[in-house]
Amino acid sequence: MKIEKAPPVFPRAEYARRLELVKSDMRRRDIETLFVCSSANIVYLTGYTARSAYVPQGLIISVNEDQPTLIMRSQDTVAGYHQTFLDKDRVIGYPESLIGHSDKDGYDAVIDFIVERGLDKNGIGLETLTLSTQGRTYAAMPTVAKFRSRLPNARLIDCSKAVDWLRLVKSDVEIAIMREAAAISDAAIARAAEVIKPGVREADAVAEIVRTLIRGANGKAGTFLAPVYFVSSPRTGTSHIPWSDDVLRAGSQVNLECGGMRHAYAAAIMRTFSIGKPSDRLRQMHEAEIAGHAAALKAARPGATCSDVASAFRNEMKSHGLDKDSRCGYPMGIEWLEPTASLKVGDETELKENMTFHLMLGNWVDDDFGYVLSDTIRVTDNGAETLTSAPRTIYEV
Amino acid sequence: MKIEKAPPVFPRAEYARRLELVKSDMRRRDIETLFVCSSANIVYLTGYTARSAYVPQGLIISVNEDQPTLIMRSQDTVAGYHQTFLDKDRVIGYPESLIGHSDKDGYDAVIDFIVERGLDKNGIGLETLTLSTQGRTYAAMPTVAKFRSRLPNARLIDCSKAVDWLRLVKSDVEIAIMREAAAISDAAIARAAEVIKPGVREADAVAEIVRTLIRGANGKAGTFLAPVYFVSSPRTGTSHIPWSDDVLRAGSQVNLECGGMRHAYAAAIMRTFSIGKPSDRLRQMHEAEIAGHAAALKAARPGATCSDVASAFRNEMKSHGLDKDSRCGYPMGIEWLEPTASLKVGDETELKENMTFHLMLGNWVDDDFGYVLSDTIRVTDNGAETLTSAPRTIYEV
Repeated sequence: MKIEKAPPVFPRAEYARRLELVKSDMRRRDIETLFVCSSANIVYLTGYTARSAYVPQGLIISVNEDQPTLIMRSQDTVAGYHQTFLDKDRVIGYPESLIGHSDKDGYDAVIDFIVERGLDKNGIGLETLTLSTQGRTYAAMPTVAKFRSRLPNARLIDCSKAVDWLRLVKSDVEIAIMREAAAISDAAIARAAEVIKPGVREADAVAEIVRTLIRGANGKAGTFLAPVYFVSSPRTGTSHIPWSDDVLRAGSQVNLECGGMRHAYAAAIMRTFSIGKPSDRLRQMHEAEIAGHAAALKAARPGATCSDVASAFRNEMKSHGLDKDSRCGYPMGIEWLEPTASLKVGDETELKENMTFHLMLGNWVDDDFGYVLSDTIRVTDNGAETLTSAPRTIYEV
Repeated sequence: MKIEKAPPVFPRAEYARRLELVKSDMRRRDIETLFVCSSANIVYLTGYTARSAYVPQGLIISVNEDQPTLIMRSQDTVAGYHQTFLDKDRVIGYPESLIGHSDKDGYDAVIDFIVERGLDKNGIGLETLTLSTQGRTYAAMPTVAKFRSRLPNARLIDCSKAVDWLRLVKSDVEIAIMREAAAISDAAIARAAEVIKPGVREADAVAEIVRTLIRGANGKAGTFLAPVYFVSSPRTGTSHIPWSDDVLRAGSQVNLECGGMRHAYAAAIMRTFSIGKPSDRLRQMHEAEIAGHAAALKAARPGATCSDVASAFRNEMKSHGLDKDSRCGYPMGIEWLEPTASLKVGDETELKENMTFHLMLGNWVDDDFGYVLSDTIRVTDNGAETLTSAPRTIYEV
C-alpha cells in the first residue's frame, strides 16, 4: 500500500499492554483464538476508528501470535492499515461479492480464515452479543449457528463482554485523552449558556453546541460526534427525544446532554438551563441532586463498589424527599457507554483507580418535568475526581 | 399523562395506510402478531424518533387491532406517547429493574405481554436480524431462544426485513419530507465549498458543515444528524474514516459525504473538492462518473430493475476504461440506508414510482486515491429525478 500510517494516537506499547491483557484472559478461559466484533473493542485493540461496522468485520486474536488480524470489507482495508499499528498482512479484505449476498456474508470470510490457519481444532471465543451505544454502532451480530456448523471441531465459547470488562480500568494515556474530551464537553456547556435564549430556535442553539463539540477546546478538535440531547419544555420529562424546529420561550427549561469525543473516547456531561427564574420545584430538585452528586463522589474510591456509590446517591436523595429508581451511571470510555458494570444498588463491582464513569443523575420524575446533572468522573488512588468541570448550577439564561 | 401530543409529522391517515400494508403482509404470511424491533420500522409505523433503542424495545402489531402497542423502558414512555399517534394505553413501560438485570431484559416484558393478551397460541412474526445503519442504532437483537422457550405454543416465524420491504415505495408525504432533507444536503455542500480552504483545520470545516446540516434550509431545520465523512488527502482511498486535527493544504482533495435529515428521513449527497487545480486523473475520473451518473438515472424507471441501473452505470464506466465493483447504491429513507434492495448487478428488484435511492458512486480505486459523487434520487412515473441538486462538479476551491 502506498498510504502511510497515521500519527499514532497511543504508543505501540499501549496496544501491546492491552493485547497482553486479552491474551491472559484467553488463557484463563482456555481458548486459543478470540473473535472480536464489537466496534469499541476493535478500537481498543487496534486504534481503528473508521465507521465501517455496518457491515461484518472483526478481529482475530491468537494467543500464539504477536499481532491480531483485522478482517474487513476490502473497501475498508486502506483505512484499517492507515489507522492501526497492524502490519499490512494483518489487514485482510473480503470481496465485495459478500456484500448483499443472499447466503454468505463477511463472517464466512472470518470462518474461512480460521479454517485456513488451522485454528478450528481448539477453543474459540466469540463475541455474540450486540449492544448499540450512543456514539457508535456495533457490527451486525455474527450468526452463531453458522460458526457452529462450519467449525464442527472447534470448542466455541461465548466471550461476549470479555474485552469490555478489560477496558474498565483506563491507563494514564487513556485518561489524558478523556481529559481532552472533557474539556470539549465543558466548552459545549459554556456555549450552550450563551445561545439558549428566548426567541432562538432549538435547532439553531443545537447547531452552535455541536459546532463547539467539533471545533473542540485547547486546540484539540472533537474528532467524533456523539448524539446530543437538547430537551426543552414541555418535554423535559423525556430523556432521548430529538431537538425540534420550536422556538425557545421565556419560562422554558432545557435539559442538555452532550459529550466531547477524542479519537472515539467520550466524556459525557449534562446540565439544566432555565430561561428566566427557575421554579421552586426545579431549585429543590437541583439542591437535592447537587447533594447526591457530592455524596456519590465521596463514596467513590478504590475498594468501594458500584453499589456503594449508588446507595450513597440514593440515600442522599431520599433525605431530600426525592428518589431516582434508575441507575446513577455506567462506565465511560470508547464510544460512550461501556456495557459492563453499572452504578446501581446491588452491583458489587469493586472500584479501582482509573476507572471512569458517567455519573448520570438525570431524573425524569413526571410526564412534564425532569432534571439533568452529570459528569464524567475518574476513581483516583484515594477517592474520585470529576473530569468535566463546568459549573454545577442551574444555568439561568 | 399531562404532556400533550407533539404536532404530527404525518397525518394519522398516513400511519393507518402503513399499518394496513403491514397487516396485509401479515395475513399473507399467516401470522396474527408481529414483533417489530428495528428502530427505523418503529419510526415508520408510529412516528417515534427518540433515541432509546440502546435498550430493548419494540412494537407489537395484531391483525385484529386498530393500534399497535409500543413496549419500552418506563423512562421512555412519555416520549413514546408524545411523539406517536398511539393512545395512552398503547404505550407500555417495563420497570427499571429489567435494565442491567443478569437474567431478564425488556424482551421478557414483551413476552409477558404476548402471553397476557393470549397471543401465544398462533403465528408470531419476529424481527430477529439486527443491522446497524449510518444514522441510528438498532435494538439489541432479541434472544430468539428466549421467545422459543417462553412461547412453546406459538408458531414463531422469522419476519426480519418484512416491514423494511414495505418501506421501499414512499408516499407523497414521505417524498415531501425527503425533499426538505435534500435541500439541507445541498446547503451543506454549498457551505463546504465556502469553508474548504488551505490552512483550515479539517475539524473546523466539518464544524461549519454540520452546523448547516442542523440549521437546515428554507426555514426547515435538520432535526437529526447522520454521520459526516470528510476524507482528505492522503486518505481519499478510504470511505469511512473520521475527520482529524490536520490542516488542509494546497493540492489536497476532500471527499465529502453527508446528508440532511428531517424527522429521521435522510437524503444523502457526496461531492469531491479540490484545493487548487484538479489532477488529470481526478478530472478523468469525474468525467466518467458524471457520464455513469447520467446513464444510471436514464436507466432508472418503473419496470426496470436495480440490476438494470447498476449495469447501465458500470457499462458507462467501462467505456471510460474504469470500473467500480461495489454496488452503486441502496434504498434511502428513514435513518439513511434501507436494508432491502441493492443497486447492484443481479438484483432483480423491480423499480416502482416513488422508490428512493442513494445513487452512490463513491469509487475508492487506489490506496491513496478515491472519488465521490452521489445523489438521492426518486423514481418518477416515467423515469427518475434527483432530490439533491448541488452542482455535479469537482468543487475547485
